[in-house]
Amino acid sequence: MEPNINAGSMDSHCLEIRMEPHKVVPPPPRSTLQKLKSRLKETFFPDDPLRQFKGQPLKTKFILGAQYIFPILNWGPNYSLKLFKSDIVSGLTIASLAIPQGISYANLANLPPIVGLYSSFVPPLVYAVLGSSRDLAVGPVSIASLVLGSMLMQEVSPNNDPVLFLQLAFTSTFFAGLFQASLGFLRLGFIIDFLSKATLIGFMAGAAIIVSLQQLKGLLGITHFTKQMGLVPVLSSVFHNIKEWSWQTIVMGFCFLVLLLVARHVSMRKPKLFWVSAGAPLVSVILSTLLVFAFKADHHGISVIGKLQEGLNPPSWHMLHFHGIHLGLVMKTGLVTGILSLTEGIAVGRTFAALKDYRVDGNKEMIAIGLMNMVGSSTSCYVTTGAFSRSAVNHNAGAKTAASNIVMSVTVMVTLLFLMPLFQYTPNVVLGAIIVSAVVGLIDIPSAYHIWKIDKFDFLVTLCAFLGVIFISVQEGLAIAVGISVFKILLQITRPKTLMLGKIPGTDIYRNLHHYREATTVPGFLILSVESPINFANITYLNERILRWIEEYEAEEDIKKQSTFQYVILDLSAVSSIDTSGIVLFKDLRKAMEKKGVELILVNPLGEVMDKLQKADEARDLMRPDNLYLTIGEAVSSLSLTILKGQSSTMCGEGT
Amino acid sequence: MEPNINAGSMDSHCLEIRMEPHKVVPPPPRSTLQKLKSRLKETFFPDDPLRQFKGQPLKTKFILGAQYIFPILNWGPNYSLKLFKSDIVSGLTIASLAIPQGISYANLANLPPIVGLYSSFVPPLVYAVLGSSRDLAVGPVSIASLVLGSMLMQEVSPNNDPVLFLQLAFTSTFFAGLFQASLGFLRLGFIIDFLSKATLIGFMAGAAIIVSLQQLKGLLGITHFTKQMGLVPVLSSVFHNIKEWSWQTIVMGFCFLVLLLVARHVSMRKPKLFWVSAGAPLVSVILSTLLVFAFKADHHGISVIGKLQEGLNPPSWHMLHFHGIHLGLVMKTGLVTGILSLTEGIAVGRTFAALKDYRVDGNKEMIAIGLMNMVGSSTSCYVTTGAFSRSAVNHNAGAKTAASNIVMSVTVMVTLLFLMPLFQYTPNVVLGAIIVSAVVGLIDIPSAYHIWKIDKFDFLVTLCAFLGVIFISVQEGLAIAVGISVFKILLQITRPKTLMLGKIPGTDIYRNLHHYREATTVPGFLILSVESPINFANITYLNERILRWIEEYEAEEDIKKQSTFQYVILDLSAVSSIDTSGIVLFKDLRKAMEKKGVELILVNPLGEVMDKLQKADEARDLMRPDNLYLTIGEAVSSLSLTILKGQSSTMCGEGT
Repeated sequence: MEPNINAGSMDSHCLEIRMEPHKVVPPPPRSTLQKLKSRLKETFFPDDPLRQFKGQPLKTKFILGAQYIFPILNWGPNYSLKLFKSDIVSGLTIASLAIPQGISYANLANLPPIVGLYSSFVPPLVYAVLGSSRDLAVGPVSIASLVLGSMLMQEVSPNNDPVLFLQLAFTSTFFAGLFQASLGFLRLGFIIDFLSKATLIGFMAGAAIIVSLQQLKGLLGITHFTKQMGLVPVLSSVFHNIKEWSWQTIVMGFCFLVLLLVARHVSMRKPKLFWVSAGAPLVSVILSTLLVFAFKADHHGISVIGKLQEGLNPPSWHMLHFHGIHLGLVMKTGLVTGILSLTEGIAVGRTFAALKDYRVDGNKEMIAIGLMNMVGSSTSCYVTTGAFSRSAVNHNAGAKTAASNIVMSVTVMVTLLFLMPLFQYTPNVVLGAIIVSAVVGLIDIPSAYHIWKIDKFDFLVTLCAFLGVIFISVQEGLAIAVGISVFKILLQITRPKTLMLGKIPGTDIYRNLHHYREATTVPGFLILSVESPINFANITYLNERILRWIEEYEAEEDIKKQSTFQYVILDLSAVSSIDTSGIVLFKDLRKAMEKKGVELILVNPLGEVMDKLQKADEARDLMRPDNLYLTIGEAVSSLSLTILKGQSSTMCGEGT
Repeated sequence: MEPNINAGSMDSHCLEIRMEPHKVVPPPPRSTLQKLKSRLKETFFPDDPLRQFKGQPLKTKFILGAQYIFPILNWGPNYSLKLFKSDIVSGLTIASLAIPQGISYANLANLPPIVGLYSSFVPPLVYAVLGSSRDLAVGPVSIASLVLGSMLMQEVSPNNDPVLFLQLAFTSTFFAGLFQASLGFLRLGFIIDFLSKATLIGFMAGAAIIVSLQQLKGLLGITHFTKQMGLVPVLSSVFHNIKEWSWQTIVMGFCFLVLLLVARHVSMRKPKLFWVSAGAPLVSVILSTLLVFAFKADHHGISVIGKLQEGLNPPSWHMLHFHGIHLGLVMKTGLVTGILSLTEGIAVGRTFAALKDYRVDGNKEMIAIGLMNMVGSSTSCYVTTGAFSRSAVNHNAGAKTAASNIVMSVTVMVTLLFLMPLFQYTPNVVLGAIIVSAVVGLIDIPSAYHIWKIDKFDFLVTLCAFLGVIFISVQEGLAIAVGISVFKILLQITRPKTLMLGKIPGTDIYRNLHHYREATTVPGFLILSVESPINFANITYLNERILRWIEEYEAEEDIKKQSTFQYVILDLSAVSSIDTSGIVLFKDLRKAMEKKGVELILVNPLGEVMDKLQKADEARDLMRPDNLYLTIGEAVSSLSLTILKGQSSTMCGEGT
């Protein structure tokens, strides 16, 4: 069956009919070292960060280098009074949000309230020097606080052993920072890309519900509350302790929650009124503190924060413990909170950078956030990052540079030094209301609906993350969702699409027969396209699937009583890479087809594929010019001539 | 910058110049259910096993169904004396191999030697009824035996508590079978595809070395041998016990090892002399037994097997324990040995099926092997599968059907009933020599070199599997290699290739500029092609990389002092799928390009991509006919007219 005439040479005899088909050439030779270098570059330095240094004099290189490491040197020298005016407004605005949120989130992490304020003082200063985002407002965030608190609680009780708990929290923060900085330094930032948007939406909604449920303790005034996190144990604990509910607390909580949610709603409707929701928490704290103080409500069942220590962050490096039985837990907690806070910080930075049209270097940001947490862990701070809500307020309030973080930090410093006694009568219930009103924004139903509309599998990931967080645990819910996302990618590789192509009449264009209805098959040819890398995970499938295509095509021909089927054309335009197992596929296919009297033709193998096929002895036969074409059109027209020639000679034979 | 003229309508005015570009149409509508159905079908039933049932009368369906479940009904009714003659020769040949190997491998798994013979009796009978391969010779195999023995030894000592050890071995076998049958039944057979050839070559070479090292105990006659598996502890144990080396054992072992290796070499050189290597182990056993018996060598430091029980397999279902503290270990052992033996069995079946041009249904084979192990576990057998070496002998000896397994099984039965006393004086050293000569074949250096030549990364996987097995442990070495293989796939997805395309002069063909040197850029157009699915794991990279392509192109234009750059054409022919995050990429790219005054043009989105882009509100603008073309050629020529028109009107404006 195999045509003996070299299609290329035959064509040259009939140039008047058709041009010589284009040769498929091997890619320009590159050494293993060059290949390795370019692959490493694309993997670890896709943004080519040293581009700006090229061809500069040494002095400029030095200045650029310093600016690269300390972005403050970029904007610092040109800082003006006009910029400062914008930054002071936004800085004070976010401070008014940061103080009550700091206290609340520390509460959420089972840490002393003052640690929340400490964490809003040092890290913003570090970030202002090292960070490259102009809008990020730094401080503790709800999800990382929740995860830190709940993970550490597995081994140590914050009530029975508060000092050990604090030590573990600081050590976890150190590991979170170390992990974040290492990711950035080793340029492995792409690891956080594996937290897809679908995963995050489900995860955050679940976490928001878990966080809100925890606040029922404060909002209802319950004293004996479960230590577990899940939906079921919390609700059962709430309804088993109905006797402990305190109506004074409930009324106060309800009023302030309504106030905060209304303020949130107003700001969402009119972004110009951003200060309404930004100021509401502080107003609530002041108002509730005055109410408690005036009515001596702390003697009527409303629990208050109590006396807080005055003064700036005490050093805490002596509290970091890198040994002992809790080391495993601490490292795991650092890893999980580190990834979570990094994801939030990077996403926030990128979002606002895109809005204002500047670039944020992901790996550099990771180093900044990581160092900030490492410094924080030795100055009594726990895990911090750029927070979504606070950064939005910062942006709306007109922040121009990272100086707004410095303004916030100074404000918090003043509070720490002089204003701490004022919080003595702040009721815990109002902190619960602040947390609930903050995390409500994390439940993003329109986005979930959007995902459902476009991609049902993505929605499944969202749903798994959500249900996993609510019913199993925060970390495991996240792990399940990431696992499913990765599994989906692997499944796509394991079961790649193979399409049957047809010719669009009057053109040389070949497209999917089941998509473009006007496309028609070419008699004698089965044209298939493979749409994925060919590797060990899919060769078995591809082998079976392609042979099934051939059998189906043969069966169809049998019905039509034709028997012109001679060539299987495999379009490799979409096969971006191949491994050693993939080479075997071609060998096996060729062997199976030979038995059927059909020939295998390859079209447009890309550089890497071409390269490897040439190196493999088994595939050398496939690399002959009459088995290899640059386009489907050229393959079909060139091979049609061969068929025609074969038929006419047969007919001549019959005629004589 | 955006051209206001609809390219399509303009073209219709100048039909004499150029044909109307082809419309990109959405794929024919399908409901979610239809999509889900076809995706599930491709994932779980890619081979369409029920194809043959279609359109058949009920009776035929019933017969086909029975033949599908019991392949013996396919060949049984047509079985002839001629076939039987072939099968009896091959059956006796593999029996002569199976008996010494069975005893040796049971030794390797720390089980009583007789269990190895039991395992060569029942499982082959089960396989003969259920299996669809004609060449597979069933029995215990070296790697699964090694792994079973070493994993169970972590918790239970085979010397101190032999009965418990045997119970755990049978229970592990049951779980291995259950797992194998479930994989087949749930049609999840593709999971074993993740053991790539590169992984297996490294793993098997490492396992062969570990197995051989274990034989040093028998070959040197050491009595106090380490219980560990790694290279380092075994060698240190060997050289710390030099005093125990027995020269009689060493001499005997060396002689028989040379005999076996020479026999192996002869058969490899001339496949017709297959019986030389097939018969050598039995000859060695007989010869060595006679020697020991004649010279009473068992009193001179050569250890012998000793008295073996006579009789057929006793039932062992009462020894299966599905509770207790060892359940976790037993399930894990079942899983690992199940996967390993399945991989070997399926690979062997497929290899010989391809040679003889018949098909083996992977999922059905899994069910057959699984049931065989489940039955085996309740009849005193441990994990069995189709063995590479034994099946090759079977094939070379001319086996025609699975009846050769029955012949082997009957021969083993006769041995169990009447010949057991003959093995009393068989020296252990000869069993060690048999194992070493069998596993030497697993070290495949030419294949490893071949992998090195074609794909350096694959070779890294091979190397990691090899070193992991030798220095860490058999299971962990395997896990590391699989992890790296999967990581490579994920890395390819995370860092997909983006190519810059150019026009091959005189054609409408666009190809990679860095591969086809004759290709040239088209002024005003940057033509990029993305070669992977677009999803959450790569949108950040793709966004940065495409913007860098644009910046580089702009810089190049600046040098040339041109400023015609107006369009970025994104060829989506190789983007096989997209998720919700991927849609956002297009939105972001479009926004970023608008700021640069450049327009984004999409070419040839495939069915699924087209479908999802249409559903997303953000991408609707991209779906306008003047942003969407079927081929790059049509996009370029259609948009060139727009540019030309724009320039000529500018020139007219300048002229007046």
